[in-house]
Amino acid sequence: MTVPIAERMSRIGTETAFAVSLEAGTLARQGKKIYPFHLGDMNIITPQNVMDAAIDAMKKGKTGYCPTAGIPELREALAKDIAASHKISLTSDNITIQPGGKPTIGKFIMTAMNPGDKVLYPNPGYPIYESQIEFHGGKGIPYGYKEAQNGFVLDMDAIYQGVKAGAKILIYNNYQNPTGASSPKAEMEELARLCVKSDIFVLADEAYYDIRYGGEPVSIASFPGMAERTVMLYTFSKKFAMTGWRLGSAVGPAQFIEYISKINVNDESCSNHFVQWAALAGLKGSNEGPAIILATLKERRDVLVDMLNAIPGVKCFRPEATFYLFPNVTGVMKRKKIDNVEELRKACLYETGVSFCTRRHFGRPLPGETDQYIRFAYSGIDVDQIREGMKKLTDFLK
Amino acid sequence: MTVPIAERMSRIGTETAFAVSLEAGTLARQGKKIYPFHLGDMNIITPQNVMDAAIDAMKKGKTGYCPTAGIPELREALAKDIAASHKISLTSDNITIQPGGKPTIGKFIMTAMNPGDKVLYPNPGYPIYESQIEFHGGKGIPYGYKEAQNGFVLDMDAIYQGVKAGAKILIYNNYQNPTGASSPKAEMEELARLCVKSDIFVLADEAYYDIRYGGEPVSIASFPGMAERTVMLYTFSKKFAMTGWRLGSAVGPAQFIEYISKINVNDESCSNHFVQWAALAGLKGSNEGPAIILATLKERRDVLVDMLNAIPGVKCFRPEATFYLFPNVTGVMKRKKIDNVEELRKACLYETGVSFCTRRHFGRPLPGETDQYIRFAYSGIDVDQIREGMKKLTDFLK
Repeated sequence: MTVPIAERMSRIGTETAFAVSLEAGTLARQGKKIYPFHLGDMNIITPQNVMDAAIDAMKKGKTGYCPTAGIPELREALAKDIAASHKISLTSDNITIQPGGKPTIGKFIMTAMNPGDKVLYPNPGYPIYESQIEFHGGKGIPYGYKEAQNGFVLDMDAIYQGVKAGAKILIYNNYQNPTGASSPKAEMEELARLCVKSDIFVLADEAYYDIRYGGEPVSIASFPGMAERTVMLYTFSKKFAMTGWRLGSAVGPAQFIEYISKINVNDESCSNHFVQWAALAGLKGSNEGPAIILATLKERRDVLVDMLNAIPGVKCFRPEATFYLFPNVTGVMKRKKIDNVEELRKACLYETGVSFCTRRHFGRPLPGETDQYIRFAYSGIDVDQIREGMKKLTDFLK
Repeated sequence: MTVPIAERMSRIGTETAFAVSLEAGTLARQGKKIYPFHLGDMNIITPQNVMDAAIDAMKKGKTGYCPTAGIPELREALAKDIAASHKISLTSDNITIQPGGKPTIGKFIMTAMNPGDKVLYPNPGYPIYESQIEFHGGKGIPYGYKEAQNGFVLDMDAIYQGVKAGAKILIYNNYQNPTGASSPKAEMEELARLCVKSDIFVLADEAYYDIRYGGEPVSIASFPGMAERTVMLYTFSKKFAMTGWRLGSAVGPAQFIEYISKINVNDESCSNHFVQWAALAGLKGSNEGPAIILATLKERRDVLVDMLNAIPGVKCFRPEATFYLFPNVTGVMKRKKIDNVEELRKACLYETGVSFCTRRHFGRPLPGETDQYIRFAYSGIDVDQIREGMKKLTDFLK
């Protein structure tokens, strides 16, 4: 008996960051002290009002199926909330609740992309974009980022080239994982103009829209002509520290959203019923919980950025959003005579217990890419542990 | 701007039973008393020990991500539980936790089936099989059921023909929705022999394995040579009245299960973390909760079957499993001079408030099919309401 495995399974990718997690876990079980900067999970507790609402809903019997696209109350509240934060018009018809933020990626691809279609996606970027594009028979066209004065900016030339090559779909992750990039207003304007002019349909992965330490967030959907061509990925995971609850939404043109819900009927019927009531309490409740989460993350960011920049040969921006840092470690590697960034990662992990990912976990390097980067997530490690781990790392790398 | 909709979206199906639900809901809002027999949702509360474990896990901070394939404790307990109930050997490697029972269907299809492959599936049957087969580019070959002495049996001729036509994948839903069919041992033996002989790979949808009112359940995976070629769909939804919690599992050959988990990495990261601890408490806890659920359902079945059979021109089996009935209403339709079973459904709904599905909601009628059937679910209606509704229906149809 040979177990039949379809051809498409040879094209599916994974999150190689999980391999780092496994490696760190193995060391931890062997007694090594680990400082976990490798995964974007959160060690912050879900706000009490959200938990209370979940328990209340459960006890009230919200334990049966609910509508595929979500309970009407949550769809309505989320439409209002996103309309306000994005300065766009939305109704419940623009909302379909999903079991997490991630499900929107695959469902967007399946709904919009035919086999053979070209899709622009960020690289370095969340590895699931490329995986889902290729799994469903599309052709991914990666675009990169460049270092500017205060942070990373889009490689617009690569995007123009991709559009010229025939890409009609763009995946855009403002407030980006792994670089922490926030598009300056002019950059987003230029991108929006290009999309309208060249009839590009957009997945705006806004998983970190609410994880901002300064300034007002801006969505590409708010630019002229964009709302009708943009599907936004929304998640409750970060703002409400609900990563393991698995709740999010696809937000976009009603016709497209209806198709996504049709996939939900086929794939999972609906998202957990009482979790939706919990999320509703989060949206409607006081902002105290999310504010504490943000303050906690901001303190970690500042400590971590300062300590990284104090290491000779490391250059790290201070992003206004996300809980990721993407320090340039070209200088350190030259000084330490390490060619391969994976080698650097392993040396740091085994010598100091500081566990992080590298550029390699976020896509294949692009042609002409010479600088070396590593990625730190600070969502799952307390500030005293950041200080302790970074001291060891500094001693090792200086 | 034309929203791009991929070609595959023209091949996705839905659960048309939801349309009945909508229709009944509209009538209810207009003040009409509705007796809901149309949906397989449950109006029975989740056992207390399961809820308590969910709350406890939530409070202990089981609110972050967990491994994609599920928490090790649940995978291990489920492997033990299914090994015992199925009389087969299983380890955690054979288990990947899913956000519901349904997700196993699509993921099985994507993993096993190439575009153009032929797949045998039951019709009447759960409409998601056909939808997922066609959505992912396969060719569905339906097989039906026949009335025997005590219940429905497989149309083995149709299955033999499908295998002859080149089908290498079979979807088999013993304890079947909508017919309530349970394969007699000889039938399952014959099917297993055919699968081994013709190298057929099987999805055994066992969503109703534990919803049995008599006898010992049997899985096709327990027959010689079958465990290595069978993927089982398991769900916590029915046994523990957890439909809206969305938790289940795919169970099968380790290599295949690993591929399914790879799809999970891409589609939803993991299933809700604390819900898994709740399910674990259900598996390890006292059987009191499931026993009460079964006793409640059995009483409903007996009342409903008796009242259906008391209507002249209705013939209804008393299935030993599931919470569905599939009465033959050919006689009633002849007597009432109704040609179309949908017409019968609507007349009953509007005249009596009794809301049920028909054969049409479970696939296109097969060639040569002459008898007419309707489907009753009794999972979402109390026994006093069954009596009240059925009295009205009897008065209308007699």
